Amino acid sequence: MSEARPDGAGPAAPLAVSMGDPAGIGPECIAKAWERRDAEGLRPFFAVGDPRAIAAVWPGPLARIGDPAEAHGRFADALPILEVEDAGDIVSGHPNMPGARCAIMALEMAVGLARSGAAGGVVTGPVSKGDLYAIGFTHPGQTEFVAERCGVSPGNVAMMLAGPSLRTVCLTAHVALADVSALLSVDAIVARARVVARGLQRDFGIAAPRLAIAGFNPHAGEHGALGREEVEVLIPAVEQLREEGLDVAGPLAADTMFHPRARARYDAALCCYHDQALIPLKTLHFDEGVNITLGLPIVRTSPDHGTAFEIAGMNRALPGATVAAIRMAAEAAERRLAAA
Amino acid sequence: MSEARPDGAGPAAPLAVSMGDPAGIGPECIAKAWERRDAEGLRPFFAVGDPRAIAAVWPGPLARIGDPAEAHGRFADALPILEVEDAGDIVSGHPNMPGARCAIMALEMAVGLARSGAAGGVVTGPVSKGDLYAIGFTHPGQTEFVAERCGVSPGNVAMMLAGPSLRTVCLTAHVALADVSALLSVDAIVARARVVARGLQRDFGIAAPRLAIAGFNPHAGEHGALGREEVEVLIPAVEQLREEGLDVAGPLAADTMFHPRARARYDAALCCYHDQALIPLKTLHFDEGVNITLGLPIVRTSPDHGTAFEIAGMNRALPGATVAAIRMAAEAAERRLAAA
Repeated sequence: MSEARPDGAGPAAPLAVSMGDPAGIGPECIAKAWERRDAEGLRPFFAVGDPRAIAAVWPGPLARIGDPAEAHGRFADALPILEVEDAGDIVSGHPNMPGARCAIMALEMAVGLARSGAAGGVVTGPVSKGDLYAIGFTHPGQTEFVAERCGVSPGNVAMMLAGPSLRTVCLTAHVALADVSALLSVDAIVARARVVARGLQRDFGIAAPRLAIAGFNPHAGEHGALGREEVEVLIPAVEQLREEGLDVAGPLAADTMFHPRARARYDAALCCYHDQALIPLKTLHFDEGVNITLGLPIVRTSPDHGTAFEIAGMNRALPGATVAAIRMAAEAAERRLAAA
Repeated sequence: MSEARPDGAGPAAPLAVSMGDPAGIGPECIAKAWERRDAEGLRPFFAVGDPRAIAAVWPGPLARIGDPAEAHGRFADALPILEVEDAGDIVSGHPNMPGARCAIMALEMAVGLARSGAAGGVVTGPVSKGDLYAIGFTHPGQTEFVAERCGVSPGNVAMMLAGPSLRTVCLTAHVALADVSALLSVDAIVARARVVARGLQRDFGIAAPRLAIAGFNPHAGEHGALGREEVEVLIPAVEQLREEGLDVAGPLAADTMFHPRARARYDAALCCYHDQALIPLKTLHFDEGVNITLGLPIVRTSPDHGTAFEIAGMNRALPGATVAAIRMAAEAAERRLAAA
């Protein structure tokens, strides 16, 4: 992809890690991830946000940079940070409007740098959606914002949750469970599955991705006896995808598709509703889950946790998911470079 | 409980393990569990069924007994078996009507022996419901049959799925997911929770059981923004249970309640629907899940898997769940004896 290295040579551009809400655990997680750079073999990245938010919770060395390219030279000895708008008074655990504005500015800048190729990809820190809405953010979440900035329709991206032994994708997400059935359609599932298959090829290097689709009802509906969604929507979607040449299993009984031997049979599971995708993922990989947006012209990942205001500033945040998100973004960026 | 040891002395009565469908993996699992009796420290048990079904898949020693009390003396050197009606022609992997009849007879006998105190409890092997229905079995499953024989209403028992690090209970089970919401009621949840709390005390020795109730909607509904079931049913049920003095958390966001630190906060999770309870349980403990029926005057457990006709007779069945079911039943029986 030309976005990642316009000059076609030299080291991969460093990753931009947006800080998220400065009053949340994002700043601490970035700092702790940098501390593990050698142990985890992380390639250079830089934070984007208000440096005071990190300094307030972490005593380590910061290196203010004016250009992403400077991150390479500073990364070994200090956490490089690209400063955005002043976040106002920062008090960990106490979000406010200037902080929310700072979070959006950091996101906007990180995405812009990735689109220009100055950053190799974006890792986005956790934000408080309620606070963003309060200051006029009109996208449902960061994913939709990034998609819009990249000129991609939300229907053509897929949010994949990935841990070391499982990847899941939600076909529907933040809606009442009673509303899910009406939102499942053959077209939407087929479109999503195509995005996932392409994303597994492009960002994970899986040449022939194997997808599995979870049934909606218990025992995948038992041929219609326990619900009609499989017969009317899921099976036709699977058939269409197979006609297109994709390797798709299912609809599978959801309860028996996430144990170790079952997980070995597919590369990603498409799940009908939020908890169906997130229960197994978080049961197995609560502290290291990564959210990766497939279908974008840029690489974008994020740690799969929230702002955790209740523990912000207490040196209790676990950086495992941030480390995993940085590693996954770096690997995806390298794959795109190699394929370009 | 007087059922378990009417004489109030001597060793605990041996457990009765019904074979389930003779063409399924039940016979092989019982035999392999017996082989592990010393390694696993299993107390005496005896099989109930057609000895030919075991002999067909296992070359080890069988000891036909006429009375459960004989099991103690034979258990060290042979698998004791109490014979029931001839199962007809037994071919592993090929269920038939005589086999289904044999499965019911074995279940009936095992339950009767436990009710009389001759057996310390019942472990039931996997049956084929379709074949049982075909020969006139009118209960939805073995659990309802056992409850009826014990004179307990199905609403006053609870099927708990238990693994080494998680116990879950379904508030609804084999119904279409779209029908679950209408089946959730404060009264049903309260009744079920009481049974679970008492069962944890009686059969697991947990003096002050901690229950957790899973939300129905993503993020437990976000105060009604993502569905009303929490506000209208789950929260009122939790409040009523707390008024009764029970330790109940929730409704909790279902995706974040099954990771290791979250599981440490409760003794059993009450889940709104089948897959919500079974996804985490089978993700974590696929090969060792036990189904235990709480609320009965007798101890009853079963391995949490089916007949697996497709691998029956191939020496491929894993007996871990049967071993775990036998151990759990034995421990529950001991606790009831000690409390009697």
